[in-house]
Amino acid sequence: MNTSSTFVPADTLESFMYQVFSSLGFPEYAALESAHTLIQADLRGIDSHGCARLASYIRLIDLKRINPRAQPKIIRERPATALIDADAGLGLWIGKEAMEIAVNKARQCGSAWIGVKNSSHFGIGAAHCLNTMGEDMIAIAMTNASPLMAPAGATKPYLGTNPMCYAIPAGKYQPIMADLATSVVANGKLEVAHRAGKPIPQGWAQDIDGNSSTDPLVLKSGGTMLPLGSDSDHSYHKGYALASVVDIFSGVLTGANFGSWVPPFVPFLDNKTETVGEGIGHWFGAISIDAFMEISDYNKRIEKWIEGVKAIPPKEGVEEVLIPGEPEYRTSQLRLSKGIEISSGLMEDLLAMQARFGLSVL
Amino acid sequence: MNTSSTFVPADTLESFMYQVFSSLGFPEYAALESAHTLIQADLRGIDSHGCARLASYIRLIDLKRINPRAQPKIIRERPATALIDADAGLGLWIGKEAMEIAVNKARQCGSAWIGVKNSSHFGIGAAHCLNTMGEDMIAIAMTNASPLMAPAGATKPYLGTNPMCYAIPAGKYQPIMADLATSVVANGKLEVAHRAGKPIPQGWAQDIDGNSSTDPLVLKSGGTMLPLGSDSDHSYHKGYALASVVDIFSGVLTGANFGSWVPPFVPFLDNKTETVGEGIGHWFGAISIDAFMEISDYNKRIEKWIEGVKAIPPKEGVEEVLIPGEPEYRTSQLRLSKGIEISSGLMEDLLAMQARFGLSVL
Repeated sequence: MNTSSTFVPADTLESFMYQVFSSLGFPEYAALESAHTLIQADLRGIDSHGCARLASYIRLIDLKRINPRAQPKIIRERPATALIDADAGLGLWIGKEAMEIAVNKARQCGSAWIGVKNSSHFGIGAAHCLNTMGEDMIAIAMTNASPLMAPAGATKPYLGTNPMCYAIPAGKYQPIMADLATSVVANGKLEVAHRAGKPIPQGWAQDIDGNSSTDPLVLKSGGTMLPLGSDSDHSYHKGYALASVVDIFSGVLTGANFGSWVPPFVPFLDNKTETVGEGIGHWFGAISIDAFMEISDYNKRIEKWIEGVKAIPPKEGVEEVLIPGEPEYRTSQLRLSKGIEISSGLMEDLLAMQARFGLSVL
Repeated sequence: MNTSSTFVPADTLESFMYQVFSSLGFPEYAALESAHTLIQADLRGIDSHGCARLASYIRLIDLKRINPRAQPKIIRERPATALIDADAGLGLWIGKEAMEIAVNKARQCGSAWIGVKNSSHFGIGAAHCLNTMGEDMIAIAMTNASPLMAPAGATKPYLGTNPMCYAIPAGKYQPIMADLATSVVANGKLEVAHRAGKPIPQGWAQDIDGNSSTDPLVLKSGGTMLPLGSDSDHSYHKGYALASVVDIFSGVLTGANFGSWVPPFVPFLDNKTETVGEGIGHWFGAISIDAFMEISDYNKRIEKWIEGVKAIPPKEGVEEVLIPGEPEYRTSQLRLSKGIEISSGLMEDLLAMQARFGLSVL
């Protein structure tokens, strides 16, 4: 196992990704926003969703399964809702557009929901929500994803690890971020265990027969991720229900694919032949705080909520009770100063891209 | 243990509860809707939230902590939002009013959110959402509740078992119902285990030091419910994050109490002296399907989603993969025909109420 690595400053890495997207034919706005979404994942410690995904996006663009010059448009609209056809564009920047429409509508109406179809991977929901945090809005982002998870009691994948993110402004504190895959853990944690040569805990994934497995490679032999809750004694029907809600909002209600028909993200898999819609789907929401109370009153209340959590004694072995999203915020502060650690294997991939596009950033 | 019981037809029990609320001074509409909300819980098998709660409501009304003649009003409004002051009324019927406003606004704007403060227990979210199912809307209901659950890593209660309910119309099938407490299990399951003389599974609750406990009475000795996920290996920070979102929507954003300041439901506990708002809070949403696509198209898509789930082979020991909410629907069909089983202890309570109010229904 090669453990050598390099630390790259976040702005260097973001600039590199921007130039790669530009080289692929993205308009400036789309290239900037796509790079910005990815660097948020690298900063927040969601390493599977940052620059490590760049190579996959490039292959999907090369295969013409993502349109670099997509022109998303609103195809159905009400005062507090819109449906967007993303024109097979990259979700990384489409999300920014959709979230802006949500915020504008919420400013007019108090709240809004925006559905997106015919899109592709949007990165981490937190990046899209964080973009709005100057607006005194609560922001929500969800997306469906290709099937990896079995419904409670089932043996085959039907749902993605379908994440939901709620970003909540918090006065003088950092925003509260509830950003979670509706599976017990994200798929990337199995890869981490595999690379470390370790078994995974019971309750993360099951084998092809539906028995909980500790094999980090179990997905490669027909296994599936388990919904949040892990088993019937611990209410995995709840994780299944939440993943279903995300799929129905993002997929069924938008006109995108849903369920087992969501196209695979991984570019070496063929697109499925049967489809039930266009691309993958997202679901964005905004709620204007001012529609419910004065911002100054809200700020006092949410600060008190946070201070109430912080006053609770932690259990033994836990240093401090954390606010949702606080671990990722701490990671981002650390990485802003220290740089982002890139393994030698990933650096080789990035340098190959740099050579292909004649860049000289890294 | 007295195991004798009686089966009471649902309409008899509903009529009895209606007459009790009427005798307590509720206007007809409020009495009818309160009884209707409770009978939904009895029908769906959520026995802790149906007629078994009637005695507690009466005590809270006797103590003047619930106002039988409440006149809820909208105190802040935008085209797609409203904030309601519930005038210390009973959440059981306030929820119906709020949900109607949500539906009317969603018909105009495509979607809406309604916050409620100064309310009390609203029963099961599913009852409020099911009321809208003829409207071609997706309905959402959340409420905060008095603290029973510790944040991840904490040793004291700060959050209720704060439920969220999503009700999704499903064409020719029953609505999909994702109705879940954000704790691993609802509090009532500990009582069931205690009555059966059984330990509870690891991962449902923890003792006063934050160690997982199998004692069904652990809450009485300073223990707390655990958030969905159960422990750090199985992502209980996700259940904690979801419970936080419910508390912030229902409590912080509405002007109700939140966190550890939510007043206790149980009437023999004193109201807390420190408050940070008025009563408890709820959060209701409606999304018009027609704002995103034609209903006929949606119906085909959601039916396909359900048929996709039903086509998955279940694992050994599971008869059939179920749609979220299907178990509760099946229970309600059974109980509609068989009646609702009332234990002899509960029947004594109900007969005492009947005597107090001079009724002759049961």
